[in-house]
Amino acid sequence: MTPAPAERLDERRVALSRALSVQGIDALVVTSRPNIAYLTGFFGSAGLLLATSDRLVLVSDTRYTETLHHLARQWPALEAVATPPGRGSAEESLVDAVAHVAPSRLGFESTHLTVRQHVDFASRLDATTCRAELIPTEGVVETLRARKDPWEIAKLREAGRRLSDVAKCIIPKVLAGSSERQLAALIEWELRQKGFDKPAFDTIVASGPNAALPHHRAGERLVGEGDLVVIDFGGMLDGYAVDMTRTVTVGPPSHRQRECWLAVAAAQRAAFAAARVGVDAEDVDAAARASLAAAGLAEAFVHGLGHGLGLEVHERPRLSRRRSGAAEGPLAAGMVFTLEPGVYVPGWGGVRIEDDVLATDAGPEWLTEPVVEVRAT
Amino acid sequence: MTPAPAERLDERRVALSRALSVQGIDALVVTSRPNIAYLTGFFGSAGLLLATSDRLVLVSDTRYTETLHHLARQWPALEAVATPPGRGSAEESLVDAVAHVAPSRLGFESTHLTVRQHVDFASRLDATTCRAELIPTEGVVETLRARKDPWEIAKLREAGRRLSDVAKCIIPKVLAGSSERQLAALIEWELRQKGFDKPAFDTIVASGPNAALPHHRAGERLVGEGDLVVIDFGGMLDGYAVDMTRTVTVGPPSHRQRECWLAVAAAQRAAFAAARVGVDAEDVDAAARASLAAAGLAEAFVHGLGHGLGLEVHERPRLSRRRSGAAEGPLAAGMVFTLEPGVYVPGWGGVRIEDDVLATDAGPEWLTEPVVEVRAT
Repeated sequence: MTPAPAERLDERRVALSRALSVQGIDALVVTSRPNIAYLTGFFGSAGLLLATSDRLVLVSDTRYTETLHHLARQWPALEAVATPPGRGSAEESLVDAVAHVAPSRLGFESTHLTVRQHVDFASRLDATTCRAELIPTEGVVETLRARKDPWEIAKLREAGRRLSDVAKCIIPKVLAGSSERQLAALIEWELRQKGFDKPAFDTIVASGPNAALPHHRAGERLVGEGDLVVIDFGGMLDGYAVDMTRTVTVGPPSHRQRECWLAVAAAQRAAFAAARVGVDAEDVDAAARASLAAAGLAEAFVHGLGHGLGLEVHERPRLSRRRSGAAEGPLAAGMVFTLEPGVYVPGWGGVRIEDDVLATDAGPEWLTEPVVEVRAT
Repeated sequence: MTPAPAERLDERRVALSRALSVQGIDALVVTSRPNIAYLTGFFGSAGLLLATSDRLVLVSDTRYTETLHHLARQWPALEAVATPPGRGSAEESLVDAVAHVAPSRLGFESTHLTVRQHVDFASRLDATTCRAELIPTEGVVETLRARKDPWEIAKLREAGRRLSDVAKCIIPKVLAGSSERQLAALIEWELRQKGFDKPAFDTIVASGPNAALPHHRAGERLVGEGDLVVIDFGGMLDGYAVDMTRTVTVGPPSHRQRECWLAVAAAQRAAFAAARVGVDAEDVDAAARASLAAAGLAEAFVHGLGHGLGLEVHERPRLSRRRSGAAEGPLAAGMVFTLEPGVYVPGWGGVRIEDDVLATDAGPEWLTEPVVEVRAT
């Protein structure tokens, strides 16, 4: 994984420092892996981070000694500690760093720390001279991550291009007689061939009646002539996730299949047109929903419109129906998200079309190559 | 995913009921996905479980309505609730179930509940008439899961056989000129062909100097003539994980490569011989370590010997060096785990050999086909 360049990491550090001050905390213990990756460029499987307004102390273990040294050399703002085996845990090293900083209000990520970890951390801290008050925080780093910087946007554009290539290779191979599982294997092979590190999630191939189940994975069912087949796949490229869905028919589409497909494609275009900076995420969902309602298919759209993409395949912003008291807020330039309307008819099948979009001040930009209207399969 | 048969689920329920009574709690809120899958046969991505001495209430959402009904029909001890969208969350339904049971001491899984979830749950509970005391627990269900039942053993035997077949297909394809990444793609393709649902973890292909890094994944490096190549791969079959490592040379091995390989294979055999019911997990690790020490390679074995396999690719028991105050306890019949000694020489390369083993009262049993001593590549 290529770490972000030092100037980007510096910008993120400054933004975090501002966020800490808004939250009224002196320092933040970061335990979420993607949040640590975002702030430091470290993608290891074990790490803890202490962030203050002017310092970042990253603790991991000796499996990552070389990586840590490399990161700290590239970006002097980072202090990296590799805890040797048998010489205290990473948790101890983190508490040492906290005691050294001696914050009075110390934030932690309440959605990324288990009750047990919290108890352990508090008791370790109690054993030091540091009398920090532990403050639960939520979404501090995730909020920063929602707006991608130019370095991230370049990565996501490249990943979107490659994912579109995967779709082009795969669609002609959706033929009668293949099992869903075989098609999923083909898709994942093709993802690797296009340079993705791994699938971003378990590949979905849902054929015939299975296409009516938004959460079907890929089973033994053989694709049959006349089926609708939903393929939903994504890849991780250098730490960043992209995600795409196509629905194809095997053989010429029936009238109803074609109508359904066109309605979903139109809903996606309506959402794209609505996805402008400053528009509430819920209103983008509403645009797709209104478009499907006009086709009499509102009830069949049983999930939200989309989700943010980045270091995780589901992150902010969430594009879904307006809920009481939990607004997602307006779209901002640099947000990257999916637009994936779908209709599901139990026993009959379903259609979902998903592409990835970047919000810019000049309007939305497709990161994957969108479907063409005239083509119903 | 095939749920376990009702009689197995009944046995697990009885065992859990006994464990609750040992812990002095009336009911347990289960939030870990593999723990929920173990107790109910439900593999969905969102679920909460309330377990009492005689009832199990599983809460999920309407994406899983059909699955939940099916499970409850197959196994009447299970009460399954699908929370409709917009009609309260799964958390609310769970709290309703708790209030109905009205336990006085209610356990929760402290290593599987975030601080935020705990706060939410406690405040929801406060709003009911239920005055349960919330008791943190740890490893209650994990301890039950460590000893596999005959149904699980049959699955793991089958998975082990198939993984051995993957190895046989792949080893001849480790040739000079392939990139690590291409070989990883081949392995994952072959896993799918042998019926695995997905890789159990990110496939490792570490060639040449990369083989000295136990946590290398698979990169752009091209395998070269004379390289040692460590391939470490695993598959999930119907919910269960198996895991295997082979180290091969490209072309005839050098004397040092061969010596190293033989020493690691001997360490694995020493561990296998030691892996008897009643023996402490740490002593199995010690047997491998002593064998490597005799070859002058003790220092080069930088990780633990192995880990349990089951619904997760890393679970109990943990086979590693004896640590102060945290003994893993003796092996028991039905435990399934890896034996994966390795030696790592910075700049030169490394060798790791990993197979899966079942502990039985009649002695250890290989679940994967072990390496043959005479073959050094």
